[in-house]
Amino acid sequence: MHKQPHPIETDAVIVGAGPVGLFQVFELGLLDIKVHVIDALPYAGGQCVELYPDKPIYDIPAVQVCTGAELTTRLLQQIAPFGAKFHYEQQVTEVEKQNDGRFFVRTSKGTSFLTKTIFIAAGVGAFLPRTLKVDGLEVFAGTQLFYRVRDPAEFNGKNLVIVGEDDTTLDRAIEFAEHGPHHAKSVTLIHRRDGFKAAPATVTKMRELCTAKQMEFIVGHVSGYEETGGRLSTILVTGVDGGIRTVALDALLVLLGLSPTLGPIAQWGLDMERKQLKVNTETFATSERGIFAVGDINTYPGKKKLILCGFHEATLAAFGAAAIVLPEKNIQLQYTTSSTQLHRLLGVGQNES
Amino acid sequence: MHKQPHPIETDAVIVGAGPVGLFQVFELGLLDIKVHVIDALPYAGGQCVELYPDKPIYDIPAVQVCTGAELTTRLLQQIAPFGAKFHYEQQVTEVEKQNDGRFFVRTSKGTSFLTKTIFIAAGVGAFLPRTLKVDGLEVFAGTQLFYRVRDPAEFNGKNLVIVGEDDTTLDRAIEFAEHGPHHAKSVTLIHRRDGFKAAPATVTKMRELCTAKQMEFIVGHVSGYEETGGRLSTILVTGVDGGIRTVALDALLVLLGLSPTLGPIAQWGLDMERKQLKVNTETFATSERGIFAVGDINTYPGKKKLILCGFHEATLAAFGAAAIVLPEKNIQLQYTTSSTQLHRLLGVGQNES
Repeated sequence: MHKQPHPIETDAVIVGAGPVGLFQVFELGLLDIKVHVIDALPYAGGQCVELYPDKPIYDIPAVQVCTGAELTTRLLQQIAPFGAKFHYEQQVTEVEKQNDGRFFVRTSKGTSFLTKTIFIAAGVGAFLPRTLKVDGLEVFAGTQLFYRVRDPAEFNGKNLVIVGEDDTTLDRAIEFAEHGPHHAKSVTLIHRRDGFKAAPATVTKMRELCTAKQMEFIVGHVSGYEETGGRLSTILVTGVDGGIRTVALDALLVLLGLSPTLGPIAQWGLDMERKQLKVNTETFATSERGIFAVGDINTYPGKKKLILCGFHEATLAAFGAAAIVLPEKNIQLQYTTSSTQLHRLLGVGQNES
Repeated sequence: MHKQPHPIETDAVIVGAGPVGLFQVFELGLLDIKVHVIDALPYAGGQCVELYPDKPIYDIPAVQVCTGAELTTRLLQQIAPFGAKFHYEQQVTEVEKQNDGRFFVRTSKGTSFLTKTIFIAAGVGAFLPRTLKVDGLEVFAGTQLFYRVRDPAEFNGKNLVIVGEDDTTLDRAIEFAEHGPHHAKSVTLIHRRDGFKAAPATVTKMRELCTAKQMEFIVGHVSGYEETGGRLSTILVTGVDGGIRTVALDALLVLLGLSPTLGPIAQWGLDMERKQLKVNTETFATSERGIFAVGDINTYPGKKKLILCGFHEATLAAFGAAAIVLPEKNIQLQYTTSSTQLHRLLGVGQNES
């Protein structure tokens, strides 16, 4: 793989923008270490916003109750003074140790870094869209195959096939089938069974549109495709009876939700135990000097997968990293209550006695 | 020492009601383990309220800023569902392992417990009043020697000597010297130098009362005393020139602030390192089975004396204790977001899917 001419040079790259990754920014910030954060999602929060954005969390110390979304907002406010740079919708695909001890890191979007340290705060892995298990189909990703609607207008006038069963999926199917601002030429909804994980009113509306021939619903699964001149022209749908139908299309929208995958991290050669990265509890360093692992992705004796434990881990990892990033300095613990240096970094208050 | 006929039987005693001790209540509460908390101060909060009640803390995760007093209030709200019993203004004076594996614990107030586990969350030690270094004087504590004004009325009509230099001290001296509801027969203020750590207006007011002969101020330090019939009758005050004056008195009020002292914990026979209790990082157990140490009082490789680290330590210690308190149960980690059992313990919400 060829390298970008100018990778971003930095002291620290954090992989994962969940709550622990965000607090890692904070603790590194207090040590005046600047960071870049990479996440597969298009926003911060990780599991908290992806799996339970509206559910109450009761065990964040001194926060009686907050939702996953609120927790994320609070942490983003807290780390704002440190100006971390976020790189969303990309996964780390390559990590390569350099002769000078730094790591070359490259993402699926081609962003690259030269960094002294890496913090893996990847939780249960990158949240990536569930894909159809059809060999070769992925080559159309981004041109005719989509996992997210970025701009609804791009499906106007298209023969559109939508795969999925939840409210998001059905709402999209209805939106494109109706004569509204975003109107596809045709809409075909595909789902494995004649039943949906969606609000009854939404299902009723969808069925009414089918009756009115404004859209079509096929029970089955996408089992293959045909291409014409390099373009995806037809998909094959296998029904419950085993029969195969062909559906001509311009665009395929797959809305099967997100699924976390550990991805390439498992191939970085770090010591692991049951899919978790082994760390020491002094600095939460992995087996590779300069690479730390915090939050749900790590393991050590006594480990509990709790956000509040990740906060502690990120704190000790920051001090572990300081020894690498700032070897000339003898980093001492300072308190946010009394340190004027920390007040300056946090951008708060006057000097206090 | 003779034992109370009926010590309180409990699963856990927490020594220290600072933020980490309070969060220890929470984590034990989630495991349905009921606790008693002992603290030397008359209120919760520990160092946070004793040393910096009004100063901002910036590094509690997801709490952008709060004072020590606010942090304490928040934690007390969070642990309210668990109904911990607090025993204030007392220190643990005795810990004795029983044949059945439990600990007999006794405090300076004579409260006693039989407990399966002990959590030492004592921070820098018990906050006890600074005393005068005069041999033998302590026998008058509580009868003629006081470190705190519980009921100002008890000094009415007395010959009162007050030692100290801060606002609290001067406010008290003025209160008792003036002809208000609490009027002592005489008030003598003693301080080592003719200067005070108090508001200028307060110092001016005090000097006016001295000029008006409503009170007296002596520069010097208490160097001895005389007793008559078992009562403290006179104190000796050594001046800066070495001369000694005698002052007759009924009551001595020493307001020199609080100073943390590790106290008897250092004599419990636990493994220590530079005045810290050594713990393992799996359960934060000390060298004695059933005794855990969390927060600033413990030490382990990588230890940082931060409140947020204490929260993590309290969490793993709770699970460590569960194996002793509830050996028959195989305690599994549950999440406050999803567990109906935890919702029941927290007294919140309906069952959620």
